[in-house]
Amino acid sequence: MKLDFSVAVHSLLYLDENSPRKITSAELAKSLQLNPVMIRNILSVLHKQGYIEGSVGKNGGYLLQRPLAEMNVGALYDLTIPPTISYARFITGDSKGLVANDTDDSDISANINETLTDLFTLADADYRRFYHRFSMTDLKTDLHQHGHFIDLVNQLS
Amino acid sequence: MKLDFSVAVHSLLYLDENSPRKITSAELAKSLQLNPVMIRNILSVLHKQGYIEGSVGKNGGYLLQRPLAEMNVGALYDLTIPPTISYARFITGDSKGLVANDTDDSDISANINETLTDLFTLADADYRRFYHRFSMTDLKTDLHQHGHFIDLVNQLS
Repeated sequence: MKLDFSVAVHSLLYLDENSPRKITSAELAKSLQLNPVMIRNILSVLHKQGYIEGSVGKNGGYLLQRPLAEMNVGALYDLTIPPTISYARFITGDSKGLVANDTDDSDISANINETLTDLFTLADADYRRFYHRFSMTDLKTDLHQHGHFIDLVNQLS
Repeated sequence: MKLDFSVAVHSLLYLDENSPRKITSAELAKSLQLNPVMIRNILSVLHKQGYIEGSVGKNGGYLLQRPLAEMNVGALYDLTIPPTISYARFITGDSKGLVANDTDDSDISANINETLTDLFTLADADYRRFYHRFSMTDLKTDLHQHGHFIDLVNQLS
């Protein structure tokens, strides 16, 4: 879900901005303007994948486990938004074709299903490649100097 | 909506396959395995934009108005799936920042909103450019020779 990606990006940038202060999930939730329950799952994923480290107790909280420069935006995208398994609800026709009509060569119902699946799958792979071109440092720079990211993309393309 | 794009692509390929026979919306709906009501709106858009021509009456039906080679896949994508106006529901933080906290420089709530909006907007533009690289002829070839489209994309990238 795209919101999960935003939660991850926002959390990591927030931890970086406030480093080396430990940040509680309550403080993070306040900045994200989301319910703490909504971010707990993503923080757990970031923790398991070695993006952040956390400690509990009175002085507990989260810290970055590695610098932003070593975090790829595309890797975060893939982590928080897995590729679509099935495009079935976006695709017309049926992989079996028209049962009542399956000797009719003019019907493209079965084939279009495969063609559209390939089109969407390849487009999604291309979309992910876009995110993989950037590190979290690129987004951090834009936070402080809005317009940086647009300039960067224009230079690259 | 992504299904609208599939409806458009499927309809145009179906008309091409059956050319010069006129195709009724009922026949098209059967191949699409959708209710005729669900495709009426898209057919109307394709008609208005000069992709198809239609006639009513006893021998009425739809025909392509121009060859597939003159139809760009990206143009169809833009026509059926307009760019997202607002990413608000995918974005954390608030464009106004934390009101109670707006003198706190460590809070990134307002800035992250702008940065994520730029990131998603640029990624979407890049996504659309992918579709613009192909004509409907590329999809037609894949219909008859599945795997063609994958090969084509691999060659281009």
